[in-house]
Amino acid sequence: MSTTLIKGGLVISATAEVTADVLVDGERVAGLLAPGSGLADSADRVIDATGKYVIPGGVDAHTHMEMPFGGTYASDTFETGTAAAAWGGTTTIIDFAIQSMGKSLREGLDAWHAKAEGNCAIDYGFHMIIADVHEQSMKEMDVLVGEGVTSFKMFMAYPGVFYSDDAKILRAMQQGAANGALTMMHAENGIAIDLLVQQALERGQTDPRYHGDVRHALLEAEATHRAIQLAKVAGSPLYVVHVSAQQAVQQLAAARNDGLPVFAETCPQYLFLTVDKLAEPDFEGAKYVCSTPLRPQEHQDALWQALRTDDLNVVSTDHCPFCFKGQKELGRGDFSKIPNGMPGVENRMDLLHQAVVEGRISRRRWVELAATAPARMFGLHPRKGAIAPGSDADIVVYDPAAEQVISAATHHMNVDYSAYEGKKITGRVHTVLSRGEVIVSGGEYSGRPGRGQYLRRATCDYLG
Amino acid sequence: MSTTLIKGGLVISATAEVTADVLVDGERVAGLLAPGSGLADSADRVIDATGKYVIPGGVDAHTHMEMPFGGTYASDTFETGTAAAAWGGTTTIIDFAIQSMGKSLREGLDAWHAKAEGNCAIDYGFHMIIADVHEQSMKEMDVLVGEGVTSFKMFMAYPGVFYSDDAKILRAMQQGAANGALTMMHAENGIAIDLLVQQALERGQTDPRYHGDVRHALLEAEATHRAIQLAKVAGSPLYVVHVSAQQAVQQLAAARNDGLPVFAETCPQYLFLTVDKLAEPDFEGAKYVCSTPLRPQEHQDALWQALRTDDLNVVSTDHCPFCFKGQKELGRGDFSKIPNGMPGVENRMDLLHQAVVEGRISRRRWVELAATAPARMFGLHPRKGAIAPGSDADIVVYDPAAEQVISAATHHMNVDYSAYEGKKITGRVHTVLSRGEVIVSGGEYSGRPGRGQYLRRATCDYLG
Amino acid sequence: MSTTLIKGGLVISATAEVTADVLVDGERVAGLLAPGSGLADSADRVIDATGKYVIPGGVDAHTHMEMPFGGTYASDTFETGTAAAAWGGTTTIIDFAIQSMGKSLREGLDAWHAKAEGNCAIDYGFHMIIADVHEQSMKEMDVLVGEGVTSFKMFMAYPGVFYSDDAKILRAMQQGAANGALTMMHAENGIAIDLLVQQALERGQTDPRYHGDVRHALLEAEATHRAIQLAKVAGSPLYVVHVSAQQAVQQLAAARNDGLPVFAETCPQYLFLTVDKLAEPDFEGAKYVCSTPLRPQEHQDALWQALRTDDLNVVSTDHCPFCFKGQKELGRGDFSKIPNGMPGVENRMDLLHQAVVEGRISRRRWVELAATAPARMFGLHPRKGAIAPGSDADIVVYDPAAEQVISAATHHMNVDYSAYEGKKITGRVHTVLSRGEVIVSGGEYSGRPGRGQYLRRATCDYLG
Amino acid sequence: MSTTLIKGGLVISATAEVTADVLVDGERVAGLLAPGSGLADSADRVIDATGKYVIPGGVDAHTHMEMPFGGTYASDTFETGTAAAAWGGTTTIIDFAIQSMGKSLREGLDAWHAKAEGNCAIDYGFHMIIADVHEQSMKEMDVLVGEGVTSFKMFMAYPGVFYSDDAKILRAMQQGAANGALTMMHAENGIAIDLLVQQALERGQTDPRYHGDVRHALLEAEATHRAIQLAKVAGSPLYVVHVSAQQAVQQLAAARNDGLPVFAETCPQYLFLTVDKLAEPDFEGAKYVCSTPLRPQEHQDALWQALRTDDLNVVSTDHCPFCFKGQKELGRGDFSKIPNGMPGVENRMDLLHQAVVEGRISRRRWVELAATAPARMFGLHPRKGAIAPGSDADIVVYDPAAEQVISAATHHMNVDYSAYEGKKITGRVHTVLSRGEVIVSGGEYSGRPGRGQYLRRATCDYLG
Repeated sequence: MSTTLIKGGLVISATAEVTADVLVDGERVAGLLAPGSGLADSADRVIDATGKYVIPGGVDAHTHMEMPFGGTYASDTFETGTAAAAWGGTTTIIDFAIQSMGKSLREGLDAWHAKAEGNCAIDYGFHMIIADVHEQSMKEMDVLVGEGVTSFKMFMAYPGVFYSDDAKILRAMQQGAANGALTMMHAENGIAIDLLVQQALERGQTDPRYHGDVRHALLEAEATHRAIQLAKVAGSPLYVVHVSAQQAVQQLAAARNDGLPVFAETCPQYLFLTVDKLAEPDFEGAKYVCSTPLRPQEHQDALWQALRTDDLNVVSTDHCPFCFKGQKELGRGDFSKIPNGMPGVENRMDLLHQAVVEGRISRRRWVELAATAPARMFGLHPRKGAIAPGSDADIVVYDPAAEQVISAATHHMNVDYSAYEGKKITGRVHTVLSRGEVIVSGGEYSGRPGRGQYLRRATCDYLG
Repeated sequence: MSTTLIKGGLVISATAEVTADVLVDGERVAGLLAPGSGLADSADRVIDATGKYVIPGGVDAHTHMEMPFGGTYASDTFETGTAAAAWGGTTTIIDFAIQSMGKSLREGLDAWHAKAEGNCAIDYGFHMIIADVHEQSMKEMDVLVGEGVTSFKMFMAYPGVFYSDDAKILRAMQQGAANGALTMMHAENGIAIDLLVQQALERGQTDPRYHGDVRHALLEAEATHRAIQLAKVAGSPLYVVHVSAQQAVQQLAAARNDGLPVFAETCPQYLFLTVDKLAEPDFEGAKYVCSTPLRPQEHQDALWQALRTDDLNVVSTDHCPFCFKGQKELGRGDFSKIPNGMPGVENRMDLLHQAVVEGRISRRRWVELAATAPARMFGLHPRKGAIAPGSDADIVVYDPAAEQVISAATHHMNVDYSAYEGKKITGRVHTVLSRGEVIVSGGEYSGRPGRGQYLRRATCDYLG
Repeated sequence: MSTTLIKGGLVISATAEVTADVLVDGERVAGLLAPGSGLADSADRVIDATGKYVIPGGVDAHTHMEMPFGGTYASDTFETGTAAAAWGGTTTIIDFAIQSMGKSLREGLDAWHAKAEGNCAIDYGFHMIIADVHEQSMKEMDVLVGEGVTSFKMFMAYPGVFYSDDAKILRAMQQGAANGALTMMHAENGIAIDLLVQQALERGQTDPRYHGDVRHALLEAEATHRAIQLAKVAGSPLYVVHVSAQQAVQQLAAARNDGLPVFAETCPQYLFLTVDKLAEPDFEGAKYVCSTPLRPQEHQDALWQALRTDDLNVVSTDHCPFCFKGQKELGRGDFSKIPNGMPGVENRMDLLHQAVVEGRISRRRWVELAATAPARMFGLHPRKGAIAPGSDADIVVYDPAAEQVISAATHHMNVDYSAYEGKKITGRVHTVLSRGEVIVSGGEYSGRPGRGQYLRRATCDYLG
Repeated sequence: MSTTLIKGGLVISATAEVTADVLVDGERVAGLLAPGSGLADSADRVIDATGKYVIPGGVDAHTHMEMPFGGTYASDTFETGTAAAAWGGTTTIIDFAIQSMGKSLREGLDAWHAKAEGNCAIDYGFHMIIADVHEQSMKEMDVLVGEGVTSFKMFMAYPGVFYSDDAKILRAMQQGAANGALTMMHAENGIAIDLLVQQALERGQTDPRYHGDVRHALLEAEATHRAIQLAKVAGSPLYVVHVSAQQAVQQLAAARNDGLPVFAETCPQYLFLTVDKLAEPDFEGAKYVCSTPLRPQEHQDALWQALRTDDLNVVSTDHCPFCFKGQKELGRGDFSKIPNGMPGVENRMDLLHQAVVEGRISRRRWVELAATAPARMFGLHPRKGAIAPGSDADIVVYDPAAEQVISAATHHMNVDYSAYEGKKITGRVHTVLSRGEVIVSGGEYSGRPGRGQYLRRATCDYLG
């Protein structure tokens, strides 16, 4: 196999920053070497990383490629979405396979395998969405854990679609407590929210801006608290997805102070955008419709603090793009019909680096939030999320001084707008290796569909 | 009208203790007089209260006379239950009228009026249980508030019976926020509890002791938190009934610290009994089956503290007696079929006085918790719950030094056991006046069915 | 003795509001009578209170008449100050006798008795300031408790003057735990503050505005927490004076939630004025120099909420006036030399009624905060702070509809400015009775020096 | 230079566990290599670590070699103490240089350099104890930071010895906020404690057991809160040493939740021993006298939880041994004269591994608490506390399966007792490298005085 030496960069992990050379042998990291060690002088290829950061490739633990929603599909396929991820320095995604009501988990998982297989530019794993809790699906959970699907998502929102009541949630958490799976939760009180939605529409409040009003921060906090208590009763760990409300953060912080195995992620949209976006004229607010919704500024401040205090542990994207034309527009005249979701898989690493530049988080915390913590959380570490001997050589050489402007005109996601249009970023991906292969280099993409492999995941690294 | 002078006693209110004479003229208090004022020397009758306490008659804000439950009825009728209340120094009850599913609030209220009218020994009011939230029942709420039914109870427990989902609760709270009503809540996550019930039964755990296990303290705390958040979203006040879990108390304390109009009661059974009772042999644990359930000792300690810190505001009984023979026994072999409820309307004032004797609460707090606060909470003050010029002359002369032993052999409730059998109490009711009429005196009962009147209540005194 | 009937008013207590007649016989309340009872038709004198409130006279638990400070004296004598209090509806003050360093408590108390005796228009009691903790002064504490001086104040501020270190505070608290006294605390970290004062002056920051900066809210909160912990170690109750910082309120709320016997007051200046006042030009900021200092708006909001949640229990004035001319001016060029203190004894009842008008507190809470709670706190209830049979007839007939404008031009305090100059108030004292004697009526003052009597106080009513 | 390959072990860092070979070249780590990479086949020496852990050498951030205390000296010299540390797998200590009252920081630091130089078996750094805060010592702080002394300890205990009042503490914190130093705090309210000490002695309570009573947990919590507030006022970071009270932990947790730069350590004695030890007969309790004192069991549980939640960040020893004979005995008849301190520098790594074995912490957390976090906290990372290219080759090969029994008979510390006498430990140091040199191997010690070097430290890695 051929060897590559990434030379002279600042190798940043969640814990340390050292100037070192990284030797890649085939698909894996063969060694971290002191500069000038001479041990790798005979490498087949040298990448000069002087003045740059050498970091583990990003792990985006929350994507929805080609997800069906309200009669349409998320506009990125596994092919387009994983290529865009690679462009943005992300080398692993974990997508959500969906159980349909009345169908088995297996059928759902098989369907998603079929969508992804042969199409991905980078490695990928699956979480499983459980829509239908019964004894059969509980037994399937055990089987799937053995196959590397070790996390299962449930919804306290979306009655009639993905919603599970508290008995179903408790039941699945009990199963997870026994089989080691991590329960992921969309924590919003959808029953109450749907009343507020209906009341708003009855009042003629149909504009996207009302999406933010009806999905009340207190109803996110309520569901978060409820999920925590149910997990405590079940003796189960919990991972709350796309946290956006400061009151929800308080619930998480309290649980973590008590030493409970409760974890959570937030997403770039909650960190960089506020609810004002939903009020943009000409229905453009629809571009920013996602659930949980964007919140006022004070919530954003609370999220940043929680990232520093580790009350939020991961930054994922919840990447679920719908084009404004033809897709978001389905909700004209009724905000509740706007497909929920935003693009972002390509922007996450850059946006978080911008937070480093602005002093909000340290470089190490950047690497931890974007790569190491999601890899550990979902049983991929140290294969992913680390640059260590034996790790997959998923490595990003990042130029901290380059400047770029985010734009739909230049991004690679298959969606007709950018949520961050015009935003200036200091820092840019320079080179991306996925399992030892250079797939992005100096603005050139050399990846291809199908080179990405399915990842059988272990259970959460933060437990036990 | 004839006048009565209650002379020489220590008149205790929620705030003050003064030696004073109380002049009753007809049904009302005509005056509080300094001893020796001479103003009432011509009273028609004198009750010597020297060495005794003179307190407002007790207000029990939570009773269920003749309540249907699981195919049987609470064993006290309005006739027997109100007489027993009077024996125990309680001169007002607020019972719960029940809306049946598919029926109007009016029909339910009318049915309860029919049960009570002509049968009560003391004055009575009604709360209304809402089982069916829809636009028609919401409009009826407004009407009932005008008729003096100003508090409405909902259930987060008992799916398929009284249970309302969060949308219905939120909707009714919105109505209450507008019409001034107080929302009362049975706060237990019944959806989750019912799963645990079913799992316990499947494991063969059918004994009453499992009743305490499955109704998990965290699931009371969860529902309490949820009710508070829903009330906050609705802008509504909230009153949580029969609180027994210390974690629920913590939720209430947090809400009250934030200045929210959140109130709560606990009951004597939670203050004087612990979960051990449920494990009594020969199915005798069934006597102590009520929901929320009895809890371990540490919860009891937390409840007493919360009574002192005013995080719990009222002590009611949740009086809902079922005879052990023939009624509680319906649940042999399946604890979930045991009728839920315990007797207590006769014991409340004495048990709380015992707490005074033991130094847990002050005399003033005794009066406040048992009479003044419930009267204020439910719009009966100062007509009830106070000894003030113009108040109804509902007055108890209480002998703090008398000794008694609680027993089914001597109590007046229509139930074949006492939850406090053999418990020694220092203190005893000496004389009870209801609207100026002596109905208990020195161990003689002179009340009669039908003398008690229906009370149209104002809205909560603690709001606005 | 002659009798007076106060007829037809709304008699407001901390708990109840009833329309009733109040019969005064000599110095005491003889009875509360239902209107039209006819029992007092032969009263010697009738005061028509129709349309007015009848409330217990105010109890101002924190005044400093003639107090020496920085080489000058508070400008109100017991004569002028108590007359002004009466004008404002306050019929009891508790002033602070001061132990000088090296002198006995007895000497200090005797000196204050000498100042007050024969000069007061209303009844008065004394707290004792302990400046010098040693075995002899601890023994004197016990004696003074027996003489009705049942509360002792210590200072965590003012090193070199009143300051006691933590050992002295703990020692005195131990004594109070044993003899039933209530420890009052000026809770500011004066050691740290004095460093900040010195640093500010060294930077040339000599204007009054810097008084607010250097007396940091966190240093009030710190001392409050420390005092609470020391009290807990000593097993002693605690009363924190003049609380102004929201972080201090949080400490108090936490302690009270834990059921500790911790109490606190705030003052009108913190409720109605903000730190901006200290920045008034031409040295006029000096008028608002007091310690703890005025704070930014958010603190004010927290104080109002704490008054509602009973985390603050009393509103006193800390009345300690210094004229702007000649007294406040001593601090020109050095804010630390400005005599600390503000006038207010005359304004308290009106300002708090204004809060009733504005919906911040209820009428009952007004009466409680201004009269009942301080009377109970300092062992004067029900003689003071209540209108009950046998109580001292300290009664205010208050016209809730009258309008007035606060001004130094019209006030009766002996000070050349008003902190509330120009503030419009709805509500005004109409008639004031002190021990049965009308001393203010319809804008006429008929009190006189020396009619006020010294009050031997019992211990705190909220303990045990 | 010669090279060493540590082969086949499980290399554990704070974040990751990977099977890897570690190549040492001279004093530094040259590379981490995937097993079988062949890159280091020519190493001069191979250490077989198969089945063993390869971890960074321990960093003990809190030792007191030869410290003067109450007329005697800690019994370990830099020579004996650092050798014992090496035996126990610790390759770096940070000791405390002491400023004497009236002397300069420089004089104190020079004295400690003189004690250590030429005597240490492992590398060492210094914190500086500030006893005398004035403008000159503040200027010296700046200079010392430049020389690698970047942390300064102050005492809220020990009045008359090391005690600084709050003004001095605030002043030094201000300096630290400006020059980047980390303020370390002994947080106990020594002023109040000394009163309790004196009162205990006056009551004849002279036995060591009273040491635990008088140093009240609330007085540790109080001082911890105070230190945090002072740091907040100064804008300074804070590191609290030897935390033992759960209430202190709560203060730290609250501060960290708020995002403050507040850090803390606990020590093995608080994690493995309880206050009962102080009551051992025949004055043997004196062996366990240290301050803060040992606490009851519930505190221990809280400390372990805080280590998991990262509310405590470091485990150091506070190694300060005094022999029972002749030293501890100085306090016979007066517990306050017992030299404060316990031995432990040799036991820390093993005791914490035992916690791994017992499931209290993970292996990664073990490495973090014992090596990585203290190195980062005190500006030594990644030179110390990491196995990374370029790091000092301070490496421990640890045998997780070996068994040992702690005993004074076999330990290498110069003290006549062990606080953990007879305690069985699973796990044992196998090989220790210090800057590339094997100094312990298979039960043989090959270190020597003087090979340890002084470490100029950078500032705290967790800031900015």
